[in-house]
Amino acid sequence: MWWAPTLHSNMTPLEFFRLQTREEILALYSRFAPVGLEEVDLARAGGRVLADTISAPEDVPAFPRASMDGYAVRAVDTFGAGPGLPQYLQITGEVAMGAVPGRGVGPGEALRLSTGGMLPPGADAVVMIEYTGEMPDGTLEVRRAVAPGENVLQPGEDVRRGETLLGPGVCLRPQDIGLLAALGVTRLTVHRLVQAAIFSSGDEIIPIKSTPAPGQVRDSNAYLTRAQVAEWGAVPIYKGIIPDDFAALKNALTNTMNRADLLLISGGSSVGARDLSLKAIESLPDAAILAHGVALRPGKPTILAALGDKPLLGLPGHPASAAIVMEVLGRPLLARLAGLADYAANPNPTVSAELSRNLAGATGREDYVRVRLRREGDRLWADPILGPSALLSPLVKSDGLVTIPLGTEGLFKGDKVTVQLFGR
Amino acid sequence: MWWAPTLHSNMTPLEFFRLQTREEILALYSRFAPVGLEEVDLARAGGRVLADTISAPEDVPAFPRASMDGYAVRAVDTFGAGPGLPQYLQITGEVAMGAVPGRGVGPGEALRLSTGGMLPPGADAVVMIEYTGEMPDGTLEVRRAVAPGENVLQPGEDVRRGETLLGPGVCLRPQDIGLLAALGVTRLTVHRLVQAAIFSSGDEIIPIKSTPAPGQVRDSNAYLTRAQVAEWGAVPIYKGIIPDDFAALKNALTNTMNRADLLLISGGSSVGARDLSLKAIESLPDAAILAHGVALRPGKPTILAALGDKPLLGLPGHPASAAIVMEVLGRPLLARLAGLADYAANPNPTVSAELSRNLAGATGREDYVRVRLRREGDRLWADPILGPSALLSPLVKSDGLVTIPLGTEGLFKGDKVTVQLFGR
Repeated sequence: MWWAPTLHSNMTPLEFFRLQTREEILALYSRFAPVGLEEVDLARAGGRVLADTISAPEDVPAFPRASMDGYAVRAVDTFGAGPGLPQYLQITGEVAMGAVPGRGVGPGEALRLSTGGMLPPGADAVVMIEYTGEMPDGTLEVRRAVAPGENVLQPGEDVRRGETLLGPGVCLRPQDIGLLAALGVTRLTVHRLVQAAIFSSGDEIIPIKSTPAPGQVRDSNAYLTRAQVAEWGAVPIYKGIIPDDFAALKNALTNTMNRADLLLISGGSSVGARDLSLKAIESLPDAAILAHGVALRPGKPTILAALGDKPLLGLPGHPASAAIVMEVLGRPLLARLAGLADYAANPNPTVSAELSRNLAGATGREDYVRVRLRREGDRLWADPILGPSALLSPLVKSDGLVTIPLGTEGLFKGDKVTVQLFGR
Repeated sequence: MWWAPTLHSNMTPLEFFRLQTREEILALYSRFAPVGLEEVDLARAGGRVLADTISAPEDVPAFPRASMDGYAVRAVDTFGAGPGLPQYLQITGEVAMGAVPGRGVGPGEALRLSTGGMLPPGADAVVMIEYTGEMPDGTLEVRRAVAPGENVLQPGEDVRRGETLLGPGVCLRPQDIGLLAALGVTRLTVHRLVQAAIFSSGDEIIPIKSTPAPGQVRDSNAYLTRAQVAEWGAVPIYKGIIPDDFAALKNALTNTMNRADLLLISGGSSVGARDLSLKAIESLPDAAILAHGVALRPGKPTILAALGDKPLLGLPGHPASAAIVMEVLGRPLLARLAGLADYAANPNPTVSAELSRNLAGATGREDYVRVRLRREGDRLWADPILGPSALLSPLVKSDGLVTIPLGTEGLFKGDKVTVQLFGR
């Protein structure tokens, strides 16, 4: 554990940092402001984070509409109608779609109209076509009475003019887009997409196109991190591999910090790489290490720093640790920067399952166990996929994570657990 | 109900179509082939559907690696070591990251190495730095014994050469991308993105930028559908509004069917628009109506057709009906075309909640009820948001759907229900 005093490196005050909990880390995110704003067309606004409050500029619907196919009538003319005792009305015409009815409905009259058609003046209800019959002479037989307002959408029934519909910090869903379209809102102010710069550091890391010599490994963590960032709706900017060299690291951080909203260092796994990253961060003007070591398993050697007003997240070197820290800490940070109001809420979908074996917790750390889901009849089992966090394949075999909370000794076979699913 | 015999339109054989269940509709999707393939860079392959089987071209790791910071040793040299009875070894140097160790480890010797460093010849274990101390004379004090293989990742321990890792029809997740990067797989064959053409039809529908005259409404359904298609990873192609005119509809379908993988008609709500859509579909060469009316509530007036080998989904005119049909039937169809092996599985995340009121089911139809989630202490309630399917706002206020299965009379207050969440 590299932050414990060792003879490998000189002891610095950082080494006495207490491990910080997930809640403590998330609380630190409020110091980072969401990214700036831009205007987008409604057609491209799905999934974007709204920056404005939107109130309805008009009523929806704007006019009384039929919600069923049938006949516009005066409800009072149908009173008493029943299967054995029909009422008879005079059909005087038809309401064309998209047009103002050419005539109204007088006593004893009916106008044909389709779903969505405008209710003509005089009418106050629609008789569904199922309960009617047209006679050859143009008389309508009505076999069921309707109440005033029946099968009619009133103006403002969906949305009333002036009503507040959506507020800042909301991620726009398809139905929100549909509602805004109905109101004629064609342009929106949203937060721009978060740009996350991703570095790898470590002398052993080589580009994935290269063939590793003995001792070298390909830059898989950065690819994993890039895919996570993209999946979560931000823009990954891959900045390549930086050797274990103070000047190179400092230079890379300096060049990038004003060109991205977030820096992610997908760390080399060695003590040297980690120490150098820390020193490079500390050497920058206005840099502050906010957390150095977190109470997660895996994921302990995580760094959170502020480079001026920009956050930097230093990820552990082991792939499973890096991936899980991104899920647990990186995703809420991206959400904060994206402007989401509920950024600290767990955005991952969950399922409830039964644990298929006992699991011991990690003392003093929140434990994230990779699990695979297995359905057995009506029961859903969570099978822990154990293995060192240095391995990628257990993560590939997993569907999600089960958390063993801080201060818990562990979980037992058969316990109902909440599985936080990987994915969007 | 417009497919029931009425005097509005001439009776056609279609009017006798039986309502088809969701399962029956999903079973029809196998006749539509997934879209073709393309090669993409690994960096852009996240979320894409793999078309190949990928086997590991090499072992990962390719060499024995330290999984902890510490000292490479012969395990036998540490046997018997304990807190009160240390063993002493001679430190003969250090393993540089990314390099083949310059020397091996002989009996009684130790080499410093960091996590990820290559294990030198002769060594078979790593003593963690926490259980050691370096003496000023270069002697290593070892306070804990290690077993052979301890804190070492063996070649092939993560992935063995030749092992099958991922197969056709899998949607690539970040961890899959990471694993492929580790193996040097830089290009992949995936299904190309599905292109979905979206039409609106109906004389009452106007572009969203326009101000509706009385009787007119903006094209909100198409915007909702477009946002859904985009959110689910396909490419929406908006083809605009088509008036209730047979020639215009036929022309639009003819021009589009060879330029998209799927046609979505976001229908006008009127009888006339629906009848015309059907007639236009039937007039095309190689067209077949596969389903005309589905056993869903809302969503009954849904059409599934084949235009040659291309599917067409005719969506109901009411916005909530269209949105729910897209969730329940449209999304699996997009998944089928995208090449996903488990396209018929429900891709929506779910949560378990307690229903907050009684709900009656719809006879002969699978009933989808919009609900909002409400947390009350430890309990999660699903509050039904009722309202005609002609309204958009209940959908905007909802978090997901609760299904009342076919053949069920309803659900009761307090019942545990599975809420299918909206969203990706």
